[in-house]
Parts: sequence; C-alpha cells; structure tokens
Amino acid sequence: MQDAMQEVMQHRLDDVKAQVQAALEEAMAHLPPGEMTDAMRYACIGGKRVRAFLVMESARMFGIEDSAALPVAAAVEALHAYSLVHDDLPSMDNDDLRRGLPTVHVQWSEATAILAGDALQSLAFGLFADERIGAAETRLTLLQGFAEAVGARGMVWGQAQDIAAETAIEPLDIVAIKRLQQAKTGALIQFSATAGAVLAGQDPEPLAEYARNLGLAFQIQDDVLDVTGDEAETGKRTGKDDAAGKATFVSLLGLEGAQDKARKLVRNAEAALEPYGEAAGNLRQLARFVIERDA
Amino acid sequence: MQDAMQEVMQHRLDDVKAQVQAALEEAMAHLPPGEMTDAMRYACIGGKRVRAFLVMESARMFGIEDSAALPVAAAVEALHAYSLVHDDLPSMDNDDLRRGLPTVHVQWSEATAILAGDALQSLAFGLFADERIGAAETRLTLLQGFAEAVGARGMVWGQAQDIAAETAIEPLDIVAIKRLQQAKTGALIQFSATAGAVLAGQDPEPLAEYARNLGLAFQIQDDVLDVTGDEAETGKRTGKDDAAGKATFVSLLGLEGAQDKARKLVRNAEAALEPYGEAAGNLRQLARFVIERDA
Repeated sequence: MQDAMQEVMQHRLDDVKAQVQAALEEAMAHLPPGEMTDAMRYACIGGKRVRAFLVMESARMFGIEDSAALPVAAAVEALHAYSLVHDDLPSMDNDDLRRGLPTVHVQWSEATAILAGDALQSLAFGLFADERIGAAETRLTLLQGFAEAVGARGMVWGQAQDIAAETAIEPLDIVAIKRLQQAKTGALIQFSATAGAVLAGQDPEPLAEYARNLGLAFQIQDDVLDVTGDEAETGKRTGKDDAAGKATFVSLLGLEGAQDKARKLVRNAEAALEPYGEAAGNLRQLARFVIERDA
Repeated sequence: MQDAMQEVMQHRLDDVKAQVQAALEEAMAHLPPGEMTDAMRYACIGGKRVRAFLVMESARMFGIEDSAALPVAAAVEALHAYSLVHDDLPSMDNDDLRRGLPTVHVQWSEATAILAGDALQSLAFGLFADERIGAAETRLTLLQGFAEAVGARGMVWGQAQDIAAETAIEPLDIVAIKRLQQAKTGALIQFSATAGAVLAGQDPEPLAEYARNLGLAFQIQDDVLDVTGDEAETGKRTGKDDAAGKATFVSLLGLEGAQDKARKLVRNAEAALEPYGEAAGNLRQLARFVIERDA
C-alpha cells in the first residue's frame, strides 16, 4: 500500500518535471543566442523539482488545472536555478559541481554566471504576468508573496547570513540556523506549497504549516547527505560543511539527533495536511520522500 | 524663456528625486539590519533619477497622479541601482568609484554586492504589486514590459554583449554598438518613458520614439563625458573606455561627430513629442539637459 502510494507520487513528480521543463524551455524559446542564454538553459536542467511539485500538487488538490499552476511552478524553478548559480560563485560558496555538472562560472565565466542568474530572476518575475494563471488580482497576490519570499527578508537574506556565518568567530546556534534556513530555503518552499491555496482563494495556513516543517526537514536531510552522501548520487561536493567548520544541524544535533529531528518534522508536516484528507496523498508522500532520498 | 523652462524642469526633477528617494526608503523600511541592507540603501543614494523623471513626467502629462506613478518610478530606480552594483563588480566592469563614492564591492565585499543587487531586483519587481499604481491589469502590463526591458532580451543581454566586446578581437561597429546600447540602457529608458501612457491606457508609440532617441543621445553623451569629463563632476572614473581600447560612439564617430549625432537625436526626440504640445515641456527640456549635462 505504502509502495503503491509512493509510486503514484513518483509518477506525478515525473509528470511535473516534464511539464516544468517544457514550460521553462517555452519561456526561454525566443532569447538571443549566446553564452548567457546557453548558461540560463544549462542552469535550468535537472534538479529534483520539489518546489514545482509543491506548486502543482497544492493547486491540483484544490481542483486547479495544471495549466494555471504551471507558469508559477516554472517561475519558482527559474528563481531557484538563479539562486544556485549565484550561490555557487567563487565569492559565495565557491562550488564547482552542481547537479553532477560543472557549475556555470566554471563552465563559462563569473560574469556569465552573474548575468545568467540576473536574467533568470527577471524571467521568473515576468512569468507572473501570464494570463493562464488566472485573475489579475490572483497573479498580483502571488507576485507579492514571491517577491517577499525571495528578497531581502527571505531567500537572499538567508544566503547573506549563511555567508556571514562562514567568517564569524562563533558558530551559529540552533535557533540562528533555523532562522537562517527558514529564510534561505524555507520561504520559497512555503511560497510554493501555499501557491495552490492562493490560486484557489483558500486559506493557505495549513499548507504553510506543512511547508515550514517540510522545509526544515529538507534542509536537515541536506546536512545529513553532506556527511553520509555520495558525490555521484548527490551531484554536488559532499563533506564541505565539515571541512569548512560550518555549524549545521548535524554538527549541532549529531547525525542521529538530526535524523530524529527530520523524522519528527515530517510527522508534523503530515499532520498539517489532515484537513485535506485523501486529496493530500501526494504531498504526504513527498514529505516522506524528503527524508528517504539519498540525493 | 528657455532658461525659465529649464528652471521648471529642474524644479520638477528635484521634486521627483525627493519623492523617489522617500519611496525607496519606504520600500526598504522594514528590512532586517545588516551589511546587505546597508549596501542596498547605499546603492540607492543619489543618481540623476532620469528614469524616475521619465515615469513621473510621462504620467503627469496624461493627468496621472504622482502617487500612482511613484511605485513604478521607485521600481525603475531600484532596478537601475542593482544593475550598477553588478556592472561594477570585478568580473564585470571592475569599477571602484560610482556617484562619487566607493562601489559596493569595494565598500563591503563581492558577495555583499551580488546579494544586495539580487535583493534590489526582487524589491523592484515586488513594487508592481502596489495597489496605488491602479487597476490590476495595468500593473501586470507594466510588470510584463519591465521584465522584458531588464531581462535576457533587454538590459542584461546588453551588458553581456558589452562584456563580450571587451575580449573580442574585432571592435564593434556602429550598428552593433547601437544595438547593444539600445538593450543595455535604451530598453529601461523606453519602459520608463512609456509608463505614463500605459498607466493612462494611451498609445505609447510617440513616447517610445522619444525614448529611443533620448536613450541613444544619453549614451553618446556618456561616451563623450568619458573623454571630456572630470571625475569630480561625473563621480565615476573617466578615460576608461579609451584605456580599454573599447569601441565607443566617440572612437567611431570622433568627438565632434558624436556630439553632432547626439544633438540630432535630441531634435528627433523633441519632434516625437509634438502630439503632446505644451504638456510635454518638461520631457522636451530633459532631452536638452541630456546633452548639456557635464555629469
């Protein structure tokens, strides 16, 4: 039974991946040829598409058509792609491997990586003008939430804190790390999971609660995989946090403590979905997938 | 008479500067304290505010209240500020002086400059959700035009071409430079100048024609000032293009040829304003100001 439900979720995830890849290609179809455009497309290849899945599944749960949710899912993934390109830069996390491929600044140059990231952010925001999403007011509500989630109080603030922590004398404590991660990855995950409720004009709070727990579990599993993971599986360098002496959920809670914490968060995430009953099956499976994944 | 009209324009420009500075401060009022926020505020200080003026004046000409045009003007200036912060980076134009002050990466760090620029772009897009602008459909039309102007087919593409030209074997010819500048600076200037028509639901074409001529004249004068200008006046390094062996309007047309061309473009810009009669007085004066400025 559990396996069958996981299969249904996996099938939907594959379907979302294909749809969002096509939507991103459509959005980049008429760009002028050149290194920057090549880098933008390259940055959008692959990825787990967890954020797109959250948008599409939360929408489907309220009876919203995939065609309406898709531009929002594409915007979220374009934004996420930009953030990875910039985070990987030498002056930031200085990563040379991402999704199993050389990072954009390694493949091309720092200038191309900065510009491709910048252009992907513009592209992401432009997608909220897409009429297929629905009523103009709805699109603007989504735009506002998106700007808040990814900007100076959300994702970018979190990344700034993360960079600052690397050179700080005292490592961060658990409260500071939670706050940092809630901004850096949690805010966009929460935007994605609540997008369906916004599209349907429903109360987003249960999905927000689900997303807060899911986002933190996701980040803890990332920290766990940095210790236990395999580069061939994760597609990125592992053991980096430890080498950098960086405080993580694993360094603060221990490996088992971190894994326990992630499991508890996933149970909370599942509990938050109760109001939706059976319709939330795929979102429930996703939460389990987050701590079971090895990449 | 001419002097009196210039004085009226200058008065309006000062008024726009004060309004847009207040609007940017309001938009950044509730950001968390830290280097990134400091850098965002720093990047938004000063500037000629030509783009904000174009938004506010094109709007006023159609009877649109300043309060409706102001969030759009603030968005344009926040976006412009982000583009300068990123353009100044070591891997891009590598500039250490801007608006008479150390550039953001010199004052703080490359990471802070990248993140502050990223956050300013998010902030700029978020401003289109502001209800004060007017009808939801109008805000979305503006959002779409803005995304197009500043993204992978507009401003960022132009900057990518500019960077590529620095390492190219053959210097650019006049056609390539015009195309580059039309994207790099022209597209956002055109968005700004036509914003008033979009806000009023009027045909934007005469303003687009005005802006195309104005934008090119503006860029030619920038090239002229790079040769004839004084660092104390311009607030940025001069003589850089020549030292870099970069093709500019001055290197291709000669100093006098470039100045003649700029004057001709300003006459074209003025001619494009004819349909608006007296109401376009300030926009007409701005075009003259562009080639008379020494900073």
